[in-house]
Amino acid sequence: MSEVISEIFKGVYENIAVLSGPSHAEEVCRKMPTAVTSAALNLETAERCRMLFMNEYFRVYNQNDIIGVETGSALKNVFAVASGIVDGLKYGDNTKAAIVSRGLKELSRVGVALGGKEQTFYGLSGVGDLMVTCFSKHSRNRAVGQAVGEGKILDEAEKSLGMVAEGIKNTISAYEIGKKLNIELPIINEMYAVLFNGKNPLKAVNDLMTRCPCHE
Amino acid sequence: MSEVISEIFKGVYENIAVLSGPSHAEEVCRKMPTAVTSAALNLETAERCRMLFMNEYFRVYNQNDIIGVETGSALKNVFAVASGIVDGLKYGDNTKAAIVSRGLKELSRVGVALGGKEQTFYGLSGVGDLMVTCFSKHSRNRAVGQAVGEGKILDEAEKSLGMVAEGIKNTISAYEIGKKLNIELPIINEMYAVLFNGKNPLKAVNDLMTRCPCHE
Repeated sequence: MSEVISEIFKGVYENIAVLSGPSHAEEVCRKMPTAVTSAALNLETAERCRMLFMNEYFRVYNQNDIIGVETGSALKNVFAVASGIVDGLKYGDNTKAAIVSRGLKELSRVGVALGGKEQTFYGLSGVGDLMVTCFSKHSRNRAVGQAVGEGKILDEAEKSLGMVAEGIKNTISAYEIGKKLNIELPIINEMYAVLFNGKNPLKAVNDLMTRCPCHE
Repeated sequence: MSEVISEIFKGVYENIAVLSGPSHAEEVCRKMPTAVTSAALNLETAERCRMLFMNEYFRVYNQNDIIGVETGSALKNVFAVASGIVDGLKYGDNTKAAIVSRGLKELSRVGVALGGKEQTFYGLSGVGDLMVTCFSKHSRNRAVGQAVGEGKILDEAEKSLGMVAEGIKNTISAYEIGKKLNIELPIINEMYAVLFNGKNPLKAVNDLMTRCPCHE
């Protein structure tokens, strides 16, 4: 988004700040303690944004890796869909944790290739947002994934829920970036096959589990 | 544990492998897909362990950072207790994600000080195990924390549950390491104050939220 904004409003890039992190609006408005990241290329901009939002129940950390924060926020949706598929298949916490932990590696590989800093993906806007989205019953991305895991095709899943799940489009972007830059993305590739090539989700999980062993 | 074993059985350190990761036994025995780490100083040892355990529903990754895997496994329990406190206070996913994400930073600071590699804490035995323990209803550490969050003192909480929560002892260790090595550990310090100095958990969360702002 920061790139889109600065294409339209020339010369403002240093003045753009992104606020991101694990922050369900339903909980923020009930004043439940929440921590997020304010990211801007220029740390003074990040600080101005922080000062606008920070209070006793909304804690804001500064960051200058705006690209990392934005890509983490988008890519986490892919793994929220994947977590939903795990739920739809009636698998448990172990499988979800495996998908999310190994997904975090893939997320950081894509994010670094796009210009983000690896550390950012292990912070609030990365792993923090990732875990909340993947374990939350409120997430639309997770809900669409669950319908796919239960056997619906993607179109049916989206129609039956009457929602837009941005994780679906994010999956296409991540898959294409991986192909173009030759990045190893086993989960993202299986997600693409399930969502767009009709691959059976159970077969996808099985293929992920039995591919050749590797170093962590 | 690897150090204890090699104190008793001299000269075996290179032959010790540690198997760790998000793996509730209840799910493994139902053959739900699970991924864990096999860590040994000598990668050949890790590989022998991997070959013993790996099958189509239990995927094992090799690692040579045995200290990182062991310290991550122990320290995650501290944040499982903290997550329980968040539940006991009736806070939501935002607060838990904040505790877990910022806790991951503290976990990696202590782990690195003890000789682990930072990357290990962002893998299966670190963040993977951390999220499963913090979000799981089965975790004893989380349960004890929840009782404390609901207003019980620690002794009552442990007695009423009739369980040993190793996260309590891990909190003492982490707190003492932080003091000794001068590591910044705001959550661990507040945990110590709540568990052992009778600090009100609500006040502890408030103090964490309102301490001076910092860079992520």
